[in-house]
Amino acid sequence: MNGADALISTLVANDVTACFANPGTSEMQFVAALDGKPEMRPVLCLFEGVATGAADGYGRMAGKPACTLLHLGPGYGNGVANLHNARRAFTPIVNVVGDHATYHRQYDAPLNSDIATLVKPNSIWVRSADTPHSVAGLAAEAVAASYGPPGGPVSLVLPADSAWLPTEGEPVIAQKPTRPAPAGQAVDAAAQAIKAAKKPVVLLGGEACRGEALRAAARLEAAGVTVYSDTFVARQARGAGVFLPKKMPYFGEMALAELEGVDLMVFVGTTTPVAFFAYPDRPSVLVPEGCETLTLAERSEDPVAGLAALADALGAPAEGPVQPLAIPDAAPSGRLNPYHVGASIARHMPEGAVICDDAVTSGTGVAAGVATARAHETLALTGGAIGIGLPLAVGAAVACPDRKILSLNGDGAAMYTVQALWTMVRENLDITVVVFANHTYRILNVEMTRTGAGQAGPSASKLLDLGDPKIDWVSVARGFGLPAVRCETGEDFDKAFAAAMAQRGPTFIEAAI
Amino acid sequence: MNGADALISTLVANDVTACFANPGTSEMQFVAALDGKPEMRPVLCLFEGVATGAADGYGRMAGKPACTLLHLGPGYGNGVANLHNARRAFTPIVNVVGDHATYHRQYDAPLNSDIATLVKPNSIWVRSADTPHSVAGLAAEAVAASYGPPGGPVSLVLPADSAWLPTEGEPVIAQKPTRPAPAGQAVDAAAQAIKAAKKPVVLLGGEACRGEALRAAARLEAAGVTVYSDTFVARQARGAGVFLPKKMPYFGEMALAELEGVDLMVFVGTTTPVAFFAYPDRPSVLVPEGCETLTLAERSEDPVAGLAALADALGAPAEGPVQPLAIPDAAPSGRLNPYHVGASIARHMPEGAVICDDAVTSGTGVAAGVATARAHETLALTGGAIGIGLPLAVGAAVACPDRKILSLNGDGAAMYTVQALWTMVRENLDITVVVFANHTYRILNVEMTRTGAGQAGPSASKLLDLGDPKIDWVSVARGFGLPAVRCETGEDFDKAFAAAMAQRGPTFIEAAI
Repeated sequence: MNGADALISTLVANDVTACFANPGTSEMQFVAALDGKPEMRPVLCLFEGVATGAADGYGRMAGKPACTLLHLGPGYGNGVANLHNARRAFTPIVNVVGDHATYHRQYDAPLNSDIATLVKPNSIWVRSADTPHSVAGLAAEAVAASYGPPGGPVSLVLPADSAWLPTEGEPVIAQKPTRPAPAGQAVDAAAQAIKAAKKPVVLLGGEACRGEALRAAARLEAAGVTVYSDTFVARQARGAGVFLPKKMPYFGEMALAELEGVDLMVFVGTTTPVAFFAYPDRPSVLVPEGCETLTLAERSEDPVAGLAALADALGAPAEGPVQPLAIPDAAPSGRLNPYHVGASIARHMPEGAVICDDAVTSGTGVAAGVATARAHETLALTGGAIGIGLPLAVGAAVACPDRKILSLNGDGAAMYTVQALWTMVRENLDITVVVFANHTYRILNVEMTRTGAGQAGPSASKLLDLGDPKIDWVSVARGFGLPAVRCETGEDFDKAFAAAMAQRGPTFIEAAI
Repeated sequence: MNGADALISTLVANDVTACFANPGTSEMQFVAALDGKPEMRPVLCLFEGVATGAADGYGRMAGKPACTLLHLGPGYGNGVANLHNARRAFTPIVNVVGDHATYHRQYDAPLNSDIATLVKPNSIWVRSADTPHSVAGLAAEAVAASYGPPGGPVSLVLPADSAWLPTEGEPVIAQKPTRPAPAGQAVDAAAQAIKAAKKPVVLLGGEACRGEALRAAARLEAAGVTVYSDTFVARQARGAGVFLPKKMPYFGEMALAELEGVDLMVFVGTTTPVAFFAYPDRPSVLVPEGCETLTLAERSEDPVAGLAALADALGAPAEGPVQPLAIPDAAPSGRLNPYHVGASIARHMPEGAVICDDAVTSGTGVAAGVATARAHETLALTGGAIGIGLPLAVGAAVACPDRKILSLNGDGAAMYTVQALWTMVRENLDITVVVFANHTYRILNVEMTRTGAGQAGPSASKLLDLGDPKIDWVSVARGFGLPAVRCETGEDFDKAFAAAMAQRGPTFIEAAI
């Protein structure tokens, strides 16, 4: 047994059973050790941003970490953007970052870099296993640390000699931390403040947007408290039979208009809402002036217990409102737009589907359509780094092989991690990919004006436009081995999407909007 | 005039005239300011790893920095791997990293991250322009710092409010640092040591592999000193009429076998050679036991002056050996292999071409073929992070619009930054892309054995193989708008490559090897 065997044994013993990987020479012992532990599923990703985004999707859906296998500093670097998103989603991930042998580091070989510094901004725990004997213990610590609460990506650096040198011993089992209920005082304080307020609202984020928490939150709505969710939620239950809180608008001034007159905001699994970006002369903090704020449940606490206790304290009914099932009878018709896509998804998406949403400006149309579709879950872009929609779907599909996975992407976003398409085919994942091809960074055309930067002239336009040349997404997707079609009308899309839902395995639709 | 205008004015005034960009909301003022300075060429890249790799290619060929425009921490993160390569190539690059408005940072909005820490490992200079009035001065400092010597990537963080707030003043002009000649003592010491040694060698790296330096180095060879170059050189003159030093072998034990009996190594523009990776029971430092080492010219010093002075001190002839022009008469024939590709390149590549080499295991065949081709230059993968060959070509083509640019890539490598294909079409760059499609990470199959990890079983094989599914590169390239062909024989490749050389603009050849 060598250090790599010890690592994989301990990961598997702690129920880490998926590895999203792009290895190099320094990781060959880890790769070889996989053969001894078939419980660990190796999933090759042709770019590390796919691996980290997939680990995020897996962690959100499985409720436990996957590991990644990344090749020194540059391999980790390629995964940074989606690890940023994962950090913002509080997703447990165990990054295994291969490094040079401990004695080789001092020579500063070409692939050497300051890994410890590089991983810091997006790791909630970092250690380097500098002897083979330390590997198992640190791996167990890494798994435990990744759970938080709240969870997040951790980085375990694995020097090549710690992987290849012999070691002994049993796998180390980590204690999985629990998520405590909020203190009774916090519940009492929230109940009293709500009773005293004229226009109280509750804002849900993170774990407070899962199914059971939403059932408890719905009781508050029934008791007259308006319930909101964060704009971007890591994993939210939605659709028929599920309570749908109002969503905090993306643009700050719209959020403040929406909250006008609110004199109390109670946070559950989230904190004070702030504008996604700053704009000249617009507010950063999205709390109305004079509005009181308090926290019912921290991100590290159990939101279900907190919400249920608060509902009880307010004497709320046992059940709150839920979304009806309302599905369009007819296929959408005419020149395709995102609302058509939302309607078709509502018509054909089976119960239990998972929507991985990186649709950017097209997302609004989809959300409208699926609000009363069959019950499903949505995974959103939590950290603002586009390029997550395809990798998230890879991870969700590996975690939930029996659920239909939808990956909805702006064309600019999908291009970031387009290599994920290959892994979908390689692993025969049941993913339907939709790319909204408007051939522009649409959001930036909006933001250009909002930031006061004015109208785009010739040079500026060159940095916003994707239409010259137009990417032929069908050709790209087929190149990666996916069956692919382009749809230009609502009728076409409805037919293609229905067909995708009726089969298993990866498929690709270019929504030409 | 706002801070963004001040930034671009100062960059242009310091001869920074190309911007490889993928902007977001926080960079809209920079984007708008480009319209006021048409001297700055904006080049949209659909992924930041393309932008940073292109800036590297540009900097190597133009001898001056391009700037990049990157969207906060995640945008920079996507560019890390190719900035690692650029750092190892000592290429001047000015990264402009957009950030939230200074007053907005405290609220930790979703895209907020610790940029200062993230940029550290791959920046030789870092500052944040926290007022609009500081922008011009810091931009000038950034340009100067990027030159070194030796050069490297620098990071100028630009908060959104520093970009949008008004400021005044003229552009600030930076002093471009010079590269001093080595001290006379170093030359004397090297000359004496060489005279005293039985088997002296000179090892060239970096700037010492450019045309003029090689002419001086050839005189040493003529004086009986064997001259080597580093394995991976940022920019090397090659082909007919150019001195071709021996190359340090990639594998350490081969390098040491090659150097057996050498009792003196003199370094010029490089330092002690070390193994690319560590392996069990193999040496890290590639200097024979008992061999003396000394440095004639540091990386920061002028290698031409040092080499010429040394040649004079040794009484070397005025001219040394150069490569002959020797081009195969006949097209290669039969099942395609990398040696065929090298032969065809030699047959048809015009003088002055630039080869961007990310061909990994296929590179040996090419190098053999082009050693006596028309004079050209080769840009190599300096930092070991694959995925540089396509972006390097983008940058080289922007820097040198009148030279034919070749981009040679392993299929695993090309997939990393495949988005670069789009920019080639967008900018109508005169690039011929060759992807060697062997559908495996060939190098890892070799390294698996060398690291003592043994034979790959079912799990391990899944992480080395790219053949299931086989990527249809022609379909992918056409999807990005490139004319593309697949070649399976030497005859086919020769015909396709000849056609590529006879036209202008981007074109793509899948070399099915």
